[in-house]
Amino acid sequence: MSQGLPAVVSDDGLTTRERRNRPILAVHTGEMKGKSTAAFGMALRGWAIGLPVAVFQFVKSDKWKVGEEDAFRALGRTFETTGEGAPVEWHKMGAGWSWSRKKGTEDDHAAAALEGWREIQRRLAAEQHGFYVLDEFTYPMTWGWVDVDEVVTTLRERPGFQHVVITGRDADPRLLELADLAMQTHKLKHPMDAGQLGQKGIEW
Amino acid sequence: MSQGLPAVVSDDGLTTRERRNRPILAVHTGEMKGKSTAAFGMALRGWAIGLPVAVFQFVKSDKWKVGEEDAFRALGRTFETTGEGAPVEWHKMGAGWSWSRKKGTEDDHAAAALEGWREIQRRLAAEQHGFYVLDEFTYPMTWGWVDVDEVVTTLRERPGFQHVVITGRDADPRLLELADLAMQTHKLKHPMDAGQLGQKGIEW
Repeated sequence: MSQGLPAVVSDDGLTTRERRNRPILAVHTGEMKGKSTAAFGMALRGWAIGLPVAVFQFVKSDKWKVGEEDAFRALGRTFETTGEGAPVEWHKMGAGWSWSRKKGTEDDHAAAALEGWREIQRRLAAEQHGFYVLDEFTYPMTWGWVDVDEVVTTLRERPGFQHVVITGRDADPRLLELADLAMQTHKLKHPMDAGQLGQKGIEW
Repeated sequence: MSQGLPAVVSDDGLTTRERRNRPILAVHTGEMKGKSTAAFGMALRGWAIGLPVAVFQFVKSDKWKVGEEDAFRALGRTFETTGEGAPVEWHKMGAGWSWSRKKGTEDDHAAAALEGWREIQRRLAAEQHGFYVLDEFTYPMTWGWVDVDEVVTTLRERPGFQHVVITGRDADPRLLELADLAMQTHKLKHPMDAGQLGQKGIEW
């Protein structure tokens, strides 16, 4: 396990320190929920070095809850009580975005998704957080609810030092082109193939 | 995002509830550190449902520290002070395993790795934890320091309800054969390819 040496020497005119401290856009795509798990794992690291974390889950149901939500909320309280780590916010579309508290209906997922993205744009412009997880955000793009070119432009031109991690299947090639880091998780073997149902603490 | 339906109906004679609550052996293998990140993400979920978490990092250096360590230690303190979640232990080989405090030398990584595995065997037999992360544990097996067949037998016959997640490149086929869940993370694109060095909060 090494910290890794670059395969080629970059010709971008930046110093090592500047390169080391560049904000990252990461995209986790491919099969399975491993991609969100990996994104939340990256956010854990961000929290640990003091980057304010904000998670935006583009999920339809307010009943969907992953264990990571409890854990990150606990980490947010750790920051509030001890100053260790960083603040944490966790927002879910299906519950009605917490800044609007407008409960969605079956019909207006498109409007809700766009409203979520508009808020993220405002926060990026204001440099409100240090580490953004846009969970399942490829789907609103795939379905045409959020414009891919607009996302790419906003992310490319985001000010300051803000890491962004996007998860979801079928990431658009334009998004992958912009990404600094793109990962795909393949299942080699999964218990659901053998007829096992998902279980709490493993699947969600 | 759905909780998933099984692709085939299992013929193992278990009830749905029994199948849903089966302890999982997961192996995250393949390129990149995404595999550890994903394993720690799974452990977050385990913590959230109250499974005592124990991490064993089979890393050579005591200087190596990932952000997840701070985050999990904070979660362990959350449990101690509020009862939320579950206890957390974090052990590293390179620092000298915390139960022995014997600092390793360059020459005895093999002995240290085997000592770590022996302790894990004892804890599995005693059902000491609910969620084990054996990080980078494929390497001691690859190098012959820990016997693969013994690992497979111990894991297959572990009592009670104990999830185990193993990470590392080149997982042995016998281990993959036993695994309930095996995931491989491929990089599509990585900043190191463009000459960027690893950065704190992203790479470790």
